[in-house]
Amino acid sequence: MLSKIIYCGCVNEKFLNQSVEINGWIRKIRKMGGITFLDIADRYGIVQVILKKDCSFDLTRESVVNIKGKVVLRKNPNKNLPTGKIEIIATDISLLSKAQATPFVIEDDFVAFEDVLLKHRYLDLRRYTVQKKIIFRSNFIHALNNYLIEKDFVHIETPILAKPTPEGARDYLIPTRNGRNMFYALPQSPQIFKQLLMVAGFLKYFQIAKCFRDEDLRADRQPEFTQLDIEMSFIDENKIMSIIEDLLKTAIKKTMGMTLKTPFARMKYEQAMNCYGSDKPDLRYDLQLIDLSSFFQKTKADIFKKILAKKQVIKGFFIKNIVITNKDFIQIKKYGIDKGLTSFYFTFKDKKCLFNSLNKNLEREILENICQKFDFKNGSLIISCGPTKEVNETLGACRIKTNDLYKIGDDNNLCFVWIIDWPLFEYNKQEKIFVAAHHPFTSPTRESLSTFTTDKINAKARAYDLVLNGYEIGGGSIRITDPNIQQKMFEAINLTQKEIQTKFGYLLEAFKYGVPPHGGIALGLDRLIMLLTKSKSIKEIIAFPKNSHGMDLMLNSPSQVDPKDLNDLFVKIK
Amino acid sequence: MLSKIIYCGCVNEKFLNQSVEINGWIRKIRKMGGITFLDIADRYGIVQVILKKDCSFDLTRESVVNIKGKVVLRKNPNKNLPTGKIEIIATDISLLSKAQATPFVIEDDFVAFEDVLLKHRYLDLRRYTVQKKIIFRSNFIHALNNYLIEKDFVHIETPILAKPTPEGARDYLIPTRNGRNMFYALPQSPQIFKQLLMVAGFLKYFQIAKCFRDEDLRADRQPEFTQLDIEMSFIDENKIMSIIEDLLKTAIKKTMGMTLKTPFARMKYEQAMNCYGSDKPDLRYDLQLIDLSSFFQKTKADIFKKILAKKQVIKGFFIKNIVITNKDFIQIKKYGIDKGLTSFYFTFKDKKCLFNSLNKNLEREILENICQKFDFKNGSLIISCGPTKEVNETLGACRIKTNDLYKIGDDNNLCFVWIIDWPLFEYNKQEKIFVAAHHPFTSPTRESLSTFTTDKINAKARAYDLVLNGYEIGGGSIRITDPNIQQKMFEAINLTQKEIQTKFGYLLEAFKYGVPPHGGIALGLDRLIMLLTKSKSIKEIIAFPKNSHGMDLMLNSPSQVDPKDLNDLFVKIK
Repeated sequence: MLSKIIYCGCVNEKFLNQSVEINGWIRKIRKMGGITFLDIADRYGIVQVILKKDCSFDLTRESVVNIKGKVVLRKNPNKNLPTGKIEIIATDISLLSKAQATPFVIEDDFVAFEDVLLKHRYLDLRRYTVQKKIIFRSNFIHALNNYLIEKDFVHIETPILAKPTPEGARDYLIPTRNGRNMFYALPQSPQIFKQLLMVAGFLKYFQIAKCFRDEDLRADRQPEFTQLDIEMSFIDENKIMSIIEDLLKTAIKKTMGMTLKTPFARMKYEQAMNCYGSDKPDLRYDLQLIDLSSFFQKTKADIFKKILAKKQVIKGFFIKNIVITNKDFIQIKKYGIDKGLTSFYFTFKDKKCLFNSLNKNLEREILENICQKFDFKNGSLIISCGPTKEVNETLGACRIKTNDLYKIGDDNNLCFVWIIDWPLFEYNKQEKIFVAAHHPFTSPTRESLSTFTTDKINAKARAYDLVLNGYEIGGGSIRITDPNIQQKMFEAINLTQKEIQTKFGYLLEAFKYGVPPHGGIALGLDRLIMLLTKSKSIKEIIAFPKNSHGMDLMLNSPSQVDPKDLNDLFVKIK
Repeated sequence: MLSKIIYCGCVNEKFLNQSVEINGWIRKIRKMGGITFLDIADRYGIVQVILKKDCSFDLTRESVVNIKGKVVLRKNPNKNLPTGKIEIIATDISLLSKAQATPFVIEDDFVAFEDVLLKHRYLDLRRYTVQKKIIFRSNFIHALNNYLIEKDFVHIETPILAKPTPEGARDYLIPTRNGRNMFYALPQSPQIFKQLLMVAGFLKYFQIAKCFRDEDLRADRQPEFTQLDIEMSFIDENKIMSIIEDLLKTAIKKTMGMTLKTPFARMKYEQAMNCYGSDKPDLRYDLQLIDLSSFFQKTKADIFKKILAKKQVIKGFFIKNIVITNKDFIQIKKYGIDKGLTSFYFTFKDKKCLFNSLNKNLEREILENICQKFDFKNGSLIISCGPTKEVNETLGACRIKTNDLYKIGDDNNLCFVWIIDWPLFEYNKQEKIFVAAHHPFTSPTRESLSTFTTDKINAKARAYDLVLNGYEIGGGSIRITDPNIQQKMFEAINLTQKEIQTKFGYLLEAFKYGVPPHGGIALGLDRLIMLLTKSKSIKEIIAFPKNSHGMDLMLNSPSQVDPKDLNDLFVKIK
């Protein structure tokens, strides 16, 4: 009798009393009397199979089997399984591949060391929780593709064998047979290529691009990563931001069924620093930093008197309805300590100060005035004082730790915010020069156009970062296309004519033949997908990630080569 | 007055008498009296603009301009342009970027040296003929993506920073900071990863994958290339072939409006070699090779008598209704010469031999018997004789050249054919050993399972190549998943236990934990898209290709690095 081959997770009541055939992995084995119960699993799910006879081979977990049998109703349905109303009475079982004992149990919540999981990543990936993230990644990226192709963007692949870049992070280098000291480099981003594609007239470009940085790694960094790279001509920053908003709204709706509110919030860089102490504020919770200096004008407490005398600031944030303990405060404060500042905390009930960690002659009246002004009744207040920048950063870190401890923000929220009005320059204290805060092709704002060379500290860039739940997930800018402004920009960061030619010669050459005004953005897909899947690390949403030393533990890579293989590459091992 | 911004190529009668705004490149400038006619171009096309006043700036070709104006009907419509019924009377023109003279004229049929085009690839890409190919590539690959996602394949990105492979072509190597002699390698294909994904249970995987080979380059090779990589579990070769057929049918219909006939033809490797002298026969034309030995049994011509005495063959192919000249024959023959064989040609009218390049005592009767038998009336016959393999290859090359000269096949045809039943082994004459013809994970056919270790010459593989118009565009196989067969296979190609462990240890380890039967295929997208767009080289369908020395002439890459940058990588320049 012919039977239909069905995926394990797809066997259901529709097949009742029919003969079916399945292939899958033996996830569980239970024997009761002469009967054996098997959970047979594949990507689509698990189905229960009943063996009433002895099996001609040794049944082991994770072995791959082919089973023919009849679908019947279960006596005791399992409501947690989509296939839980039925089971298969096996008429035939054959072994396709015998499994030996796995180094960890293939169950969603089985805990194992990261090293063991990475070494056997193909087994880790067999777990549904892990597999689902990789499948989500595929669907999400496809949704991005669909949206952009529909909007007439052209997907263009740019080279992986590219040219060493003159600045930024460290490049991965590839020796070639082309000659002595002739190297390709892996691209840190397709930046130059995408700008050249605008010169070429493509108008709307995108790419799901592999990028590479030889940097020391962190939880959300890998030596290779994937970005959605976009560039457009004849547009401004509003157009780019609204396309990205619509793109994410569409893709998230399609893959998660969730409706984002657009437009996303926009916040100036300065406001983000002042109110959240971070250029990537997590807006799932409030805990805004507030300048409280004015309340302390008449204090007799020495520490605050000195601060005000130096024209520094006293800032704080309220934690509503939560009375923090000294133990928690020490944890919270730890994150601000490396700035060399002191923080204090105060707790309130009905606007009355109950506890004062400063515990000196600080006037209760001041604290209660503050409560009055901000209509703050119950909870805690954390304050810090010193130079503005350090106070912002300290309290910003305390703010995040406070949320970690008390789960104030809703984990299910996606709080996107654009950070705009970035500084054009950054001051490099070591070398005592200004450098480009983004890259030297980022255009000054219209307001800064006439002053950016003379007032570098206040010069602003036409740059925008997209922030989600406290992570930077993308950034971009409108590029300089006017040769005079470009020349001024290079001078402002102290490049000589010769350096300009060596570093950017080919791009400037291209711009001589008619360059459209253009700008773009790049979204870090690994980080974005990590957040959307509520993963703790980007390793979870990459099929074969490296560990924090850049090692692939499964392949044992990087690895040794036969030194002979280097002969033609004009390099040798030191 | 507000005006709509429209793409140049999209301005048409719908906008008649409306104010519009366009951005684009000045493709052409013609002055007549006080009036200037401009062709303004963007990705979507060209629109004619009339300037009735003098312009405040110098008008140069390829400058980028913004123009506001009114759409009016043309007095003399241009039927060759989609915008040809209208023109724009400019009210305002402003210069966005001034272009200096381009190194070649941006016109579809302007001829320039390849080096000049590659150096200014961003200008070459501005030409519609070139731009269209890149846009086609984007659409075609998206159609592939769409089909596969709909069929529930999972797109999974595998590492670019991978491990040096033990065999095959030369790897690109990447020194790392991980230690002395610690290298990543760029992947020649995701072969190992995709097999591990089957162990992980993904069932249906695909990837638009970048692959790398440090080989000497040819017209249809680049150091980096893109392949559509596919792997499936619980399938056989028929299932894979039919999915690929349906995939290509769907994508070609969607992007080219052309309906492919499926299933594609299937041809055994042996038949391809015998009838076309090639494992990638171009079936747009017939010119089949025919064994004519039997007709020569009674010849007195020495050359053929010797051949038959040695049990070698005399083969030939007919060119219907074309009388080749001696000059053409010399060209055709040239391609067979390096096999050390001689070829001859004969021409016929009404089955009578008119000309005989052998010009010796070869009996006309034999030739006319041949015509009689194959009902061949008018045209030419090319024959060659010697050992079978060399004769096949010689005549196969002559067959291709004949088509090049006489355009027998229809260039608009897409003739797909599967080549199946491949040899499992190849004999390496130099080292006098058998090696795996594909890779050592390719399964023997069911028929060869019991004999493949003893009869290596006749052992066949469960491998299949897809050929289009004489090019191999893809290949794959069903993999070995039975450890016993795998062990026999390794022994058959003389690998020691230690070599097996070093080279394939991690894959064999993975197979111990339950491996499903699986197989897959990889399609070379560059070559496929080259053929679909009727390009002469894959360079035409890659946005930024390397030249035949692996150089990017635009970026001048590979290029020198500061030897200091190598310090941390444990290598130095020789």
